[in-house]
Amino acid sequence: MLTIAYLGPEHTNTHAAAQKRFGQRCKYVHAPTIEDVFHSVERRKVDYGVVPIENSLEGAVTHTLDRFIDFVDTPVKIHGEREQQIHHCLIVHRGVKTTDVRRVYSHPQALAQCREWLDRHVPRAPRLETNSTAEAVGRLFSKNMSGSIGSIMMKDYAAIGREELALQYRLKAVPIPDRRENKTRFLIIGLGNPKRGPSNKTSILFGVKDKPGALHEALLAFKRERINMTKIESRPSKRKAWEYLFFVDIEGHESEPRVRRALVALRRSTSLLRVLGSYPVAR
Amino acid sequence: MLTIAYLGPEHTNTHAAAQKRFGQRCKYVHAPTIEDVFHSVERRKVDYGVVPIENSLEGAVTHTLDRFIDFVDTPVKIHGEREQQIHHCLIVHRGVKTTDVRRVYSHPQALAQCREWLDRHVPRAPRLETNSTAEAVGRLFSKNMSGSIGSIMMKDYAAIGREELALQYRLKAVPIPDRRENKTRFLIIGLGNPKRGPSNKTSILFGVKDKPGALHEALLAFKRERINMTKIESRPSKRKAWEYLFFVDIEGHESEPRVRRALVALRRSTSLLRVLGSYPVAR
Repeated sequence: MLTIAYLGPEHTNTHAAAQKRFGQRCKYVHAPTIEDVFHSVERRKVDYGVVPIENSLEGAVTHTLDRFIDFVDTPVKIHGEREQQIHHCLIVHRGVKTTDVRRVYSHPQALAQCREWLDRHVPRAPRLETNSTAEAVGRLFSKNMSGSIGSIMMKDYAAIGREELALQYRLKAVPIPDRRENKTRFLIIGLGNPKRGPSNKTSILFGVKDKPGALHEALLAFKRERINMTKIESRPSKRKAWEYLFFVDIEGHESEPRVRRALVALRRSTSLLRVLGSYPVAR
Repeated sequence: MLTIAYLGPEHTNTHAAAQKRFGQRCKYVHAPTIEDVFHSVERRKVDYGVVPIENSLEGAVTHTLDRFIDFVDTPVKIHGEREQQIHHCLIVHRGVKTTDVRRVYSHPQALAQCREWLDRHVPRAPRLETNSTAEAVGRLFSKNMSGSIGSIMMKDYAAIGREELALQYRLKAVPIPDRRENKTRFLIIGLGNPKRGPSNKTSILFGVKDKPGALHEALLAFKRERINMTKIESRPSKRKAWEYLFFVDIEGHESEPRVRRALVALRRSTSLLRVLGSYPVAR
């Protein structure tokens, strides 16, 4: 039986993504931080880890990107990805109307994504940040001495989270519509190399030499082999101010000759190069 | 007399950057959000605005980037930039030792930048996020009925912020050393076009057409004119999942013939193009 660590607590979007990828016949353990998920995989405490990498509205999850920079020699490889549609709900106690809400708790990304709806429907309720959407729902109840959720209801508090979270606590979920595409992409991380799929992508981390046109020269390696680049993201190197490292996703598998040739060329024009993984594209 | 809006409250790093840029003979007004700074400039309530754009350890300030995407036709132009060395201090009441600290308040970026030091020196104190470093220092005192700072001292609370903040409240500042370069870059925004300096840069926002090699083709416009690209940052377009817009900084002024030629070529290979400003490089 596989053991899967995910960025917890339970019933968050990362948990749902992990369950959709690995099914019911696995043991799931929640980790409090992204660092803990990586660490559990590195120490072989679990078989795989699941962490968010980017959201279509809010952009990169910089904690996940920076973990690859801070531990550049980690044995962890990306084994796959998973996309998940995000549907936010305003979660309230039964019988409570949206207009009665006096406080809204949620994860900063969820609050940011629902900003317009909140401005229109609960303009006067202050928005308070929590570490997860699950923790936000916990705020709708008093706390016991032990810190666990008590039975006293905070009647006029609301949380933003997934409908499943409301069901779990027998609360009411009011859907928050969004005309924009709200999806989160998650990475499956593990040791060793993943199986090659019918359609693959390769994630790379590199630094360019400090000279004019260096990034352009690096990208030329892909252009020459007609390899499509699906994503580029820059992050501070943290070694020197205004020096950057680049995360690039390309189409194709590391074992394909054209990808191999491109990586050889890329190594020549970069100061650092790591292949973070070749893995099947999410469909 | 010029009026300058900055991301407040008073005595934050943005305030210090604004004062260093414009001196003492200006009127400074603090704005609670980045949106408010832009808005004040657009409505001509102030002459210039000052907002953070990136930090050398934590990366882009996505709120500032996204304001240019969300209001792509804003008349606001970048008029300049300013770099500021960040020196964090642990701010405590006089007579309180670091080992006595039971809670640490600060802005999430400051807490993230001091993570290692906090882990070593105050490992047991929970870290609590505030909207600014100035607000964090306010937590070291009780609140009055009106919400302003009261006189009762929260003896075992600490904040992370600039030394000036400690002086203002007659508190003690313990420097937090960091061997890494910690700098923040700020943008000066205004209406109209700024004066050309001896050495200039141009900031551009563009979207590429959805076809293989599109980004590479766009960057070719600069390479052909031997224009150095000093920065590239991608952000979600928010119109369609996994569609990105790019923020690029190049060396040179919009009025230089080679920059003009590159922009004409760039316009042909992009789906959207905005020049956010040509302005003197910070020294």
